[in-house]
Amino acid sequence: MTVQKVGFVGLGAMGRGMAANLLRAGFQVQVWNRSPEPVRALTEQGATAAADLAEVFANEVVVSMLPDDATVDAVLHDPALLAAARASVHVNMATVSLELARRATALHAEHGVGYVAAPVLGRPMVAAAGELNILAAGPDALLDRVEPLFAAMGRRTWRLGTEPLQANTAKISTNFLLACAIESLAEACSLAEANGVRPTDLVEMLTGTVFPGPIYSGYGAMVAERRYDPAGFRLALGLKDVNLALAAGAETHVPLPFGSVLRDAFLDAVAHGDADRDWSAVAEATRRRAGLPA
Amino acid sequence: MTVQKVGFVGLGAMGRGMAANLLRAGFQVQVWNRSPEPVRALTEQGATAAADLAEVFANEVVVSMLPDDATVDAVLHDPALLAAARASVHVNMATVSLELARRATALHAEHGVGYVAAPVLGRPMVAAAGELNILAAGPDALLDRVEPLFAAMGRRTWRLGTEPLQANTAKISTNFLLACAIESLAEACSLAEANGVRPTDLVEMLTGTVFPGPIYSGYGAMVAERRYDPAGFRLALGLKDVNLALAAGAETHVPLPFGSVLRDAFLDAVAHGDADRDWSAVAEATRRRAGLPA
Amino acid sequence: MTVQKVGFVGLGAMGRGMAANLLRAGFQVQVWNRSPEPVRALTEQGATAAADLAEVFANEVVVSMLPDDATVDAVLHDPALLAAARASVHVNMATVSLELARRATALHAEHGVGYVAAPVLGRPMVAAAGELNILAAGPDALLDRVEPLFAAMGRRTWRLGTEPLQANTAKISTNFLLACAIESLAEACSLAEANGVRPTDLVEMLTGTVFPGPIYSGYGAMVAERRYDPAGFRLALGLKDVNLALAAGAETHVPLPFGSVLRDAFLDAVAHGDADRDWSAVAEATRRRAGLPA
Amino acid sequence: MTVQKVGFVGLGAMGRGMAANLLRAGFQVQVWNRSPEPVRALTEQGATAAADLAEVFANEVVVSMLPDDATVDAVLHDPALLAAARASVHVNMATVSLELARRATALHAEHGVGYVAAPVLGRPMVAAAGELNILAAGPDALLDRVEPLFAAMGRRTWRLGTEPLQANTAKISTNFLLACAIESLAEACSLAEANGVRPTDLVEMLTGTVFPGPIYSGYGAMVAERRYDPAGFRLALGLKDVNLALAAGAETHVPLPFGSVLRDAFLDAVAHGDADRDWSAVAEATRRRAGLPA
Repeated sequence: MTVQKVGFVGLGAMGRGMAANLLRAGFQVQVWNRSPEPVRALTEQGATAAADLAEVFANEVVVSMLPDDATVDAVLHDPALLAAARASVHVNMATVSLELARRATALHAEHGVGYVAAPVLGRPMVAAAGELNILAAGPDALLDRVEPLFAAMGRRTWRLGTEPLQANTAKISTNFLLACAIESLAEACSLAEANGVRPTDLVEMLTGTVFPGPIYSGYGAMVAERRYDPAGFRLALGLKDVNLALAAGAETHVPLPFGSVLRDAFLDAVAHGDADRDWSAVAEATRRRAGLPA
Repeated sequence: MTVQKVGFVGLGAMGRGMAANLLRAGFQVQVWNRSPEPVRALTEQGATAAADLAEVFANEVVVSMLPDDATVDAVLHDPALLAAARASVHVNMATVSLELARRATALHAEHGVGYVAAPVLGRPMVAAAGELNILAAGPDALLDRVEPLFAAMGRRTWRLGTEPLQANTAKISTNFLLACAIESLAEACSLAEANGVRPTDLVEMLTGTVFPGPIYSGYGAMVAERRYDPAGFRLALGLKDVNLALAAGAETHVPLPFGSVLRDAFLDAVAHGDADRDWSAVAEATRRRAGLPA
Repeated sequence: MTVQKVGFVGLGAMGRGMAANLLRAGFQVQVWNRSPEPVRALTEQGATAAADLAEVFANEVVVSMLPDDATVDAVLHDPALLAAARASVHVNMATVSLELARRATALHAEHGVGYVAAPVLGRPMVAAAGELNILAAGPDALLDRVEPLFAAMGRRTWRLGTEPLQANTAKISTNFLLACAIESLAEACSLAEANGVRPTDLVEMLTGTVFPGPIYSGYGAMVAERRYDPAGFRLALGLKDVNLALAAGAETHVPLPFGSVLRDAFLDAVAHGDADRDWSAVAEATRRRAGLPA
Repeated sequence: MTVQKVGFVGLGAMGRGMAANLLRAGFQVQVWNRSPEPVRALTEQGATAAADLAEVFANEVVVSMLPDDATVDAVLHDPALLAAARASVHVNMATVSLELARRATALHAEHGVGYVAAPVLGRPMVAAAGELNILAAGPDALLDRVEPLFAAMGRRTWRLGTEPLQANTAKISTNFLLACAIESLAEACSLAEANGVRPTDLVEMLTGTVFPGPIYSGYGAMVAERRYDPAGFRLALGLKDVNLALAAGAETHVPLPFGSVLRDAFLDAVAHGDADRDWSAVAEATRRRAGLPA
């Protein structure tokens, strides 16, 4: 029998678009959020509002889209929640640490609630358009069961394995690569500028030749033009993601020397007041080291 | 008046394809090479053989495609060569250091010979197909003059400025970014593998989402599958290129922390006998550090 | 009135010698330890055994010497302990994070119990000999009050300020410098060996010239002779200490690039099974990178 | 027969004191220097002035104390010099690269002139006092022969082997360790300051406990007090020495991650105008990264 009733927790910039797409696809969606405004917006689109988390977890499937470990922990904190849950599966779409992934997997298993990790690639506009890439891992039967939800929210589902942890690993690895690309571009642009090549010329050539695609062209332009506001992704969150990669490496004894450089550069950026700018502002740390004009 | 007679020095894996494309485009090409075999092949395609370098430098335009600083230095070593040259412009398409770029520019100016730097992006097969990306810099009038040659050899010319050095800077920056992408992929794949995600799954997802294009898919596959032979680009040359970037940074006091990590990783790879494998074999250094299966 | 009754928590390799020195100096010492054996040894030397932590915290002064954050947290976990404590001051001699230092300071203040941080420099033999260096911070009146205890346990007290955190910072900084000295020696010895200089010759010269003192001679010999067993200080604990420094840096946005290198090198060492050897075994990671004989 | 006549090349800040000590010990010293002033000062102390380098190399033993590779190369550049030399041994006391050491060794062998490398540890005042530490390597018979000269100039000779290269390796390794100690202190002082510990308190404690000796106390004070002028050793020379270590590592494929960090930090310092301050000014790079008050 196909899923019809979905509980949805976390109506932030990402979650509201995702929940709206579930509604559009015909699911009955019951939503819960810490602050009431987004709930109102969704109920106007046809969702019902849950009185509390317990009510959300009474739906067949619960999807949560929360910002970080701390928030996920806060939700799962109440021991009664999962114990009483009638939900057959909880789809956690947050970007979380492997440590949390492990704990959450064990906790759900203990209470007989299915657990799937499905972090996503894409910004709020992509979420609103239903064009997310969904990195999913968990037992195949559960993934099959929730695939219609994924289809409503994303352009494609990438299955990474039967352990939820695997999806979180892939997401952490992807964000690590994005940060690496930004730092690489930052160093290359500083090198170019110091030697008389306009960074915008360099980036135009790069994206027209070996590095096509939105990451190098988008971040390349931001770095080359030193345009970091408004933030597409806050630098403080970028540091958090670099730390997730380093923590995942530490647990399995994988040194990540690029990751270590990233951490130092992001700390430098935070020390210089750039925590709330776009994470490509880490390029300013590169410029400062080289004494390039501020 | 348009260029018709072209001298061509350096018929290595890249140069032979480039010279052949000049012939195909109707230029009269006189070639010179240290070893005779490639000369024979080109003369069969319609080129003439020069008796010595002096004869090559008697053509209107001389193109050289040599492997590195040392070889270029060896060619320009003879003080009589440029002094007697009737050529109006020398197009140096080698990947050289900024230090050599500066010296060569001054030397040509001293002898009244025009000088253009035009390093290329692309492997031998791309050169043979006339699909190179050509990074060119030098006085505009000279660049205009040799553009028909570039059109014969490449898919597009990227003009970086009026100082030859600028093209070399752009080339060095590009190779630096390629090396960064490889090391990033290497660290991400080790992180993934250690946490239970198949590197091939990770790379497939990455190249299907945020990192399209041949670099991430090509090197990603090589790293994920640990397939480094035969070498598309030798690791020893990769180390040379990383050192070019570091040297360019040192001259202008631009610290490149990713560059420093790359240098250490490439040294590690050379120490373990991988100098002649593809430069993506630097990924094995990452695996060794993490104690992943050899 | 001078302190006479001292509660002592934590009779590990360090604590048992410290408590014995308090006894020798004439203090009445009441001890508590998770495992009973060390308690027996101390009572034979004149100490009394406490029934529980509450009893220990009824003494005028409580000294704790615990291995790490987790253990200290476990002791302070019971909200009733400090609330009921009749002790006027708790001297925490553990090496802990600044985060714990801050929490512990606030917790003691809340319950009106004085709090002093006094981590030490020295191994168990030094502790047994009463020759520790004690890094102390806290309100001056409290430091004055417990100075007779410090005098019994150490050769000298170094006062770092009125905030307990300051002593922990100094301790973390010192351990960071020790790790840096080891890695420096490791890299220098690999460089020397690869270029035909015997590491033992290098170390003998160094310690006879610019680097006198036990750290360079002791760790220098261990690195040069590759003698890492038995561990004077376990490598896993060394990694913990490096992480304490990095965490302290992260909180205040101080990038520590040497610290980042250390973390990667220690992870490499752990990945190769050296967690239980002396932390100078991190030198083997340097050797591995260089392909020096295993 | 013992050495009596000594040629001495290079009367810089170090060489003049060393030559004076040879005179004091009773040797007949003939001096040569590029600029005439120091020659005059030495002849007043009993030296004779050589007309040219050839005359210096006619002495039994020639000692040279030159600042760097380039200057040594300039001296040895004339092919006639060694060919005509009647000297039985040339003692090169400069800090040079291993590459130069190798070339110089071969060149002297070719011309039948003995060659000894004997770089020193100590500043000009130490040289003037005859208290240098001399790191010597070369054939034993030659070292025995020149030991009386070393005894006149130094407090102790450290024999590193029979290949001149070995002494240069030891010197490069020592300078590398000095630079590591400075950077370590810089990072520790920034960490301390950011967390409320006065760097001067930290350094006093460190040098009174685990890090005795002039390096940690001297550089520790300079870093803690941010007192970098006048330069005891110029930062630009420090960068040169770091590069010597990295080059030595590169030749033998020994990655030196601390060396890479040092290079980046010294470049940062040079980019910020500190090339002529004491090399301990590299600490300012650490402060800048952390956003500590300028």
